[in-house]
Amino acid sequence: MLIDRLAALLPGPADPAREVWVGDDAAVVARPAGPLLLAADAVVAGVHADLELVGLDDLGWKAVAVNVSDLAAMGGRPTHALITLAGPLAEVDIDLLYQGVMAAADTYGCPVVGGDLSRAPGLVLAVAVAGDGAGREPLVRRSGARPGDTVFVTGALGASAGGLALLRCGRGGEAPDLVEAHRRPKARLGAGMAARRLGATAMIDVSDGLAIDLSRLAAASGVGLVIDHVPVAPGVEKAGPDPEALALGGGEDYELVFSAPGPVEAVEDGFAAAGLPPPVAIGRCTVDPAERVLRGGPLPMAGWEHTW
Amino acid sequence: MLIDRLAALLPGPADPAREVWVGDDAAVVARPAGPLLLAADAVVAGVHADLELVGLDDLGWKAVAVNVSDLAAMGGRPTHALITLAGPLAEVDIDLLYQGVMAAADTYGCPVVGGDLSRAPGLVLAVAVAGDGAGREPLVRRSGARPGDTVFVTGALGASAGGLALLRCGRGGEAPDLVEAHRRPKARLGAGMAARRLGATAMIDVSDGLAIDLSRLAAASGVGLVIDHVPVAPGVEKAGPDPEALALGGGEDYELVFSAPGPVEAVEDGFAAAGLPPPVAIGRCTVDPAERVLRGGPLPMAGWEHTW
Repeated sequence: MLIDRLAALLPGPADPAREVWVGDDAAVVARPAGPLLLAADAVVAGVHADLELVGLDDLGWKAVAVNVSDLAAMGGRPTHALITLAGPLAEVDIDLLYQGVMAAADTYGCPVVGGDLSRAPGLVLAVAVAGDGAGREPLVRRSGARPGDTVFVTGALGASAGGLALLRCGRGGEAPDLVEAHRRPKARLGAGMAARRLGATAMIDVSDGLAIDLSRLAAASGVGLVIDHVPVAPGVEKAGPDPEALALGGGEDYELVFSAPGPVEAVEDGFAAAGLPPPVAIGRCTVDPAERVLRGGPLPMAGWEHTW
Repeated sequence: MLIDRLAALLPGPADPAREVWVGDDAAVVARPAGPLLLAADAVVAGVHADLELVGLDDLGWKAVAVNVSDLAAMGGRPTHALITLAGPLAEVDIDLLYQGVMAAADTYGCPVVGGDLSRAPGLVLAVAVAGDGAGREPLVRRSGARPGDTVFVTGALGASAGGLALLRCGRGGEAPDLVEAHRRPKARLGAGMAARRLGATAMIDVSDGLAIDLSRLAAASGVGLVIDHVPVAPGVEKAGPDPEALALGGGEDYELVFSAPGPVEAVEDGFAAAGLPPPVAIGRCTVDPAERVLRGGPLPMAGWEHTW
C-alpha cells in the first residue's frame, strides 16, 4: 500500500527502543523540555498554491514552513510534524510532494512522525507541528505590546508577492530571488528565538500582509500603531509600479514583526550577536488603540483576504 | 471573520496566564507527564462519511474519536486536539460540524487548542491529537505480541458496518444501536489504558476490519494467528445474511484488539476491577508468522480497502 511505501521513505527515530514514529497507531516521542507548542495549518492547491506556477515539492515545503513559522512567532521551536495528505492521490506525484515536505522537515529539525493519506476531490496538505517552548523568557504572544514599544520587522517584505506577480505573467526569470521567496518561504526560527530572548513583548508572522498582521498584533495588545518605514525587498519594483503596496499587503513573506521596549540598538546588537541580520525598526506602539498610521496617513489594510 | 466567530465558540484555558489556546500563532499548553503521543487522521466527506446518511455533527465527532482511538490503541490518553477544516465553507454548516467536534473533545478530554480553516473543493476534516503516555508499564506497540499470547478484543464487532448497511437501504430505524455505533463511534480509552496496565504486549484499534487490523498486529510482531471465535454485536443479523463477515471485515468499530500472556482470567478480572466490560478472548498467537487461521480455515481478509 501507498502508506507503507511512504513510511519506508521517511526516516525513523535514532532510538527505536524509546520512540515510535510512522508505522504504529500513534507516534511516541520525548516530551519537550518546556511548554508544549501546537499548531496546524493547511495548504490547499488552488487556494494557497497555484500548481501551474509552483511544484508539488514547493507545496510540500510551504506546508511545513508555514507551520514552523507559527512556532517561530511565539519564540519557540518545532520538534515533530504530522502530515495529512488528502487529494486525488492517483494524479498526485506523492514522492515529489514529500521531497519538499522532508526538505523542510530537515531544515527546521521537525521530523515527520505520523499523518494520514486519503482520497479527496482537491489536494489538501494539512500539517500539524509540535514544538518546545523551553526558555528563560516567556513565550511571545500577540497581546503583550505596550505603548512606547518599538515595532521591528525581521527583514524586507514583498518578495513573495512580487515573485508570484512575475510568475503569473511569465516573467519569473527576471527575479529568481523573488520567485524563490514565493516557492520556498523561510520560517524565521532563529529570529523568533532571538526576539524572545531580547524581550519582545508581542510577535506575529507576516502571512497575510504586514498591515493586516501588524493590526492583529495591535488589536490583541490594545495599542495603536505609528509606522514610518516599510522595508521593501530588493527587486520588488520589477513586479509592479507600487512595490510598497506589495510589501504592505502581499503577505506570505513569513518575516516576523515584533514589539520591544528599550533602545533599538540593544535589539539590533542582540541579533548581530546571534549572527542574524539586524531587524528593522519600522515604528512604534501608541496609546490610542484605534490609531493605525503610516507616515501621517492611514495604514492601508489591503492584504490576503480569506474569501469565506 | 469566520475564524474569529469559531474561536469565540471554543472554550479557553482555565489559566490564561499560563496557556494559550486558539487565537495566537500557536497554542501553548502544559507538557505531558510522560512521553508525548502524536497522531493525525482525516475524515473526508464521501470517503469516510456519507453525508446523505450521517450528519455534519457526526462527521465532526468521528474525526476526533478516530484520533483518540489511535492513542487508546497505545494505552495512552489524549490531551489536546487541532482541527483543520478544508472544504466548500459557504455550503457547510460549520456550527453543526463543530458541535460534534466539541462533543467528542469534551467526552475524551482533549480540548481544541488550534487549527485552520480553508476553502477547498471537498470537505476534509483533518484532526491531529497530542497525548500523554505517562504510566508505569510501557506504551503498547503493534509489534510486541509473542507466540502463546492470548488475543483479546474489547467488545463485539460489526455494529458500525451493520448500521451503515441498514442506513443505506433506509432501514436505520430497525436498529438504533447499530446506527448510533456508525454515527458516533466510541474510542475505547479506558480499555486501552487497562490493557496496558494488565501487560498487553501488542495492541491496535479495529478501524479497517478485525481480520486486516489483527493481521497488521501479527505481521508487525512476527507471529501467527489462530482465531476460534468472533464476537458479533447484537442486531448485526438484521443487516445481512452473514453477520460474522460484517464483524470480521466491516471495520470502524474502534474496539481494541490486543495480545497478552498469562491466564485469561487475570485480564478479565483486571477489566472488571476497572469497571469495564470484560474483553473477549478470541484466539492466540502462534510461532509460524504466516499462519492466519479462523476455526481451521483461512482467516478471510475482506475489509476496508483504501482505493489508492
